[in-house]
Amino acid sequence: MADTIGAGAAIKALKGWSVAGGERDAIFKAYKFADFKTAFAFMSGAALKAEQMDHHPEWFNVYNKVEVTLTTHDAGGVTQKDLELAGFMDQLAAKLA
Amino acid sequence: MADTIGAGAAIKALKGWSVAGGERDAIFKAYKFADFKTAFAFMSGAALKAEQMDHHPEWFNVYNKVEVTLTTHDAGGVTQKDLELAGFMDQLAAKLA
Amino acid sequence: MADTIGAGAAIKALKGWSVAGGERDAIFKAYKFADFKTAFAFMSGAALKAEQMDHHPEWFNVYNKVEVTLTTHDAGGVTQKDLELAGFMDQLAAKLA
Amino acid sequence: MADTIGAGAAIKALKGWSVAGGERDAIFKAYKFADFKTAFAFMSGAALKAEQMDHHPEWFNVYNKVEVTLTTHDAGGVTQKDLELAGFMDQLAAKLA
Repeated sequence: MADTIGAGAAIKALKGWSVAGGERDAIFKAYKFADFKTAFAFMSGAALKAEQMDHHPEWFNVYNKVEVTLTTHDAGGVTQKDLELAGFMDQLAAKLA
Repeated sequence: MADTIGAGAAIKALKGWSVAGGERDAIFKAYKFADFKTAFAFMSGAALKAEQMDHHPEWFNVYNKVEVTLTTHDAGGVTQKDLELAGFMDQLAAKLA
Repeated sequence: MADTIGAGAAIKALKGWSVAGGERDAIFKAYKFADFKTAFAFMSGAALKAEQMDHHPEWFNVYNKVEVTLTTHDAGGVTQKDLELAGFMDQLAAKLA
Repeated sequence: MADTIGAGAAIKALKGWSVAGGERDAIFKAYKFADFKTAFAFMSGAALKAEQMDHHPEWFNVYNKVEVTLTTHDAGGVTQKDLELAGFMDQLAAKLA
């Protein structure tokens, strides 16, 4: 099982992420794109990464907004997997911005 | 501007939808699929329908679950557009079940 | 029915497109991305545009390559619709490059 | 490196696949769906499987048609990986039919 990093340490290694609300150890980021097409292109690329990692986001979308919460359920907190998926999403979102 | 039907009337015309919580007039359904692949296939088909209608869902996904809230923002409530998108989603989800 | 522009004129209005081989009046472009994830993000965004326009590409994908042929079947050649879809694809691909 | 099965043996283990034309050892199938939305839902689900396997199809789409060619490039022919991806695609396509 992966070691937990903790949300507080994780957000220092990332840009624009915050500690998620609630009792869980999790990180959160809200992305905003030009329109729904761009938001869904982002989600599609991220979905492929998630499935490849077998590590899936909790995400909410409406129109051009995508809100992502990441945690590693079986580790009970934020792990290296979350950092990797967050990093991938940030890179893809930066391209699509 | 489209006339509102109201969430209460809308859910009677659909299966498995309920009146959404909160103060808005909106409808809600939670779909569950075999896995993330199937859930994302559903989301992709529904995304094309939504963009075609220029009417976008509020939706949340984690792994095999997709939770959808529908309302027509500029009408201030549930309209025929929501019924159409809900009907499309139900048909696609039934196939993928 | 839309007026045909002709592939020769169309490619002058675009960058990186060529007249498609074969007897049809059509335009062609080969895109190359970093990997399959990026290629499929491109295809997802373009698919939403295509469905919205009710104007669909002929496209081939393997790994990071996407080859697109555009023509307007019911007009018998390249039209303004093809220019619009090509322009959308070029913009999205440029972001993802 | 994976052992090759050969296209001839592979198609006996599948339904609706044929030996691909050309000199390569590869298998081919043409899928037809109700519309572009359904075809792209299929492609999205299959894309996730492909990325997970790190084994990517050669595929062509126009509107409701998806034509798939499978081979394992680094093995020089059809392998168990192609059977697995073909089987996944057949199951998903059957649901969406």
